[in-house]
Amino acid sequence: MANFSTNDAAELRIGADFRIADVDPGSTPNFKGDKNKLEKEFSEIDDELSELQEMLYANGRASAETAGAVLLVLQGMDTAGKGGVVRHVLGIVDPQGVDLAAFGKPTEEELAHDFLWRIRKKLPRPGRIGVFDRSHYEDVLIHRVHGLSSAEEIERRYGAIVEFERELAESGVRIIKVMLHISPEFQRENLEERLERADKHWKYNPGDVTERGYWEEYQEAYEIALRRTSTDFAPWYCVPGDNKPYARMVVKYLLLDALRSMDLEWPEPDFDVEEEKRRLAES
Amino acid sequence: MANFSTNDAAELRIGADFRIADVDPGSTPNFKGDKNKLEKEFSEIDDELSELQEMLYANGRASAETAGAVLLVLQGMDTAGKGGVVRHVLGIVDPQGVDLAAFGKPTEEELAHDFLWRIRKKLPRPGRIGVFDRSHYEDVLIHRVHGLSSAEEIERRYGAIVEFERELAESGVRIIKVMLHISPEFQRENLEERLERADKHWKYNPGDVTERGYWEEYQEAYEIALRRTSTDFAPWYCVPGDNKPYARMVVKYLLLDALRSMDLEWPEPDFDVEEEKRRLAES
Repeated sequence: MANFSTNDAAELRIGADFRIADVDPGSTPNFKGDKNKLEKEFSEIDDELSELQEMLYANGRASAETAGAVLLVLQGMDTAGKGGVVRHVLGIVDPQGVDLAAFGKPTEEELAHDFLWRIRKKLPRPGRIGVFDRSHYEDVLIHRVHGLSSAEEIERRYGAIVEFERELAESGVRIIKVMLHISPEFQRENLEERLERADKHWKYNPGDVTERGYWEEYQEAYEIALRRTSTDFAPWYCVPGDNKPYARMVVKYLLLDALRSMDLEWPEPDFDVEEEKRRLAES
Repeated sequence: MANFSTNDAAELRIGADFRIADVDPGSTPNFKGDKNKLEKEFSEIDDELSELQEMLYANGRASAETAGAVLLVLQGMDTAGKGGVVRHVLGIVDPQGVDLAAFGKPTEEELAHDFLWRIRKKLPRPGRIGVFDRSHYEDVLIHRVHGLSSAEEIERRYGAIVEFERELAESGVRIIKVMLHISPEFQRENLEERLERADKHWKYNPGDVTERGYWEEYQEAYEIALRRTSTDFAPWYCVPGDNKPYARMVVKYLLLDALRSMDLEWPEPDFDVEEEKRRLAES
């Protein structure tokens, strides 16, 4: 049965010597089962994931100060499957327990503030699982590739991000950062599908093809950003993404691992259970 | 196969002569199948629901001005199953397409404004399905039961709500309002379970037993509020709630009905598909 485990997922954590070229987007590291049956096979941890999420939520309700939260940061090239992870992994748990934020092109107001300003406003509430579909990392990725900020400013941001995430972690937020790593060939197939099918046109953006022209520059920007900002308290995982069910499964296990590590328990009641039973019986 | 339909669900819409005592909380109106197999049976419309939600979302992305949205208002006594509806009905669709808002006791800041102020801030974005777990109706329900507002003010609010919802509907929001109607006996069982099980204690609130003491007053407040505010553009449905799978199924069909009535289509691309295919091929 055990074709994959939280330890297997944790091994995708990147080290200081991370080289993106060493990760094959088409591979399925540590998975020992039938690659074509991934989708079916990995519903087996859904119940545990769901129960731990509920426990986290219950703690958030009982005590906002001590409950903590989880933050899952998703990054990747266009069509890498961020939306699919949200749908298939977060779709398992109670929607009430998920705080979802997608970060697109910044507004005028957002640009007038520090790059972390809009991020802070979308942090998960206590007891929630927060998901960032793109994030503050765009401000060191696209900014580096297109020179939207100076090299000095980008350098400053790596440090600012690490400090920001340290502060978050110290406030009780478990941070998981995932780069969904796809190949340019896989992206081409995905974009072709979006152009072929009328029900996929809405997902297509001509800008995506433009950005494809900067593939190598993005890989380099990712490699540097991940190396510089992968810490004990906010580790990065580089997850091969060409096999979508595999990538989703890995994220599911990473989430499970984070929840398990919180040593969650059901909160103690702040009322006298026996007394309440009496009151209810009399009502 | 057809043990239930959108028409069957629509018949639970209340009329001007609505009397809450006429609705048996334990009944399952219009359902022709095996009551104990409800949970399994009604996944058959999930795919259609899911596709229409995606289409709505796609339209929201293509044109915020014209896309419209859906708003599902959920009301009911404590333990009526509002959270279960969110989880089991909205859990089917893409979490990115759902805007969820729960309205608890108003804050100081909220109390300093008109009762609709906090509601307006949580309206669904274009292309989304908004869900209100409790709503502006609390301001005519609990307020009437406990005299938190004067009779004149509550009278004014019925009218203000109708005008507010008319304005919403005219802006393209399909409104579905559901009262999950349970019996006091069913509530007692639910509260007992919350007191018996350590993993349910967090859902228990001593105030719920206190409110139970006002059961009849709440029924009366609901009857009046529903009659006064059920309109063509924002109808109320009184859904028997003692059979949870039944109630969830009804809400699912109401949602499907609303989405179908929007005559959704995939948005037209705002780019030249053939030109983009060429650009992609050359990239």
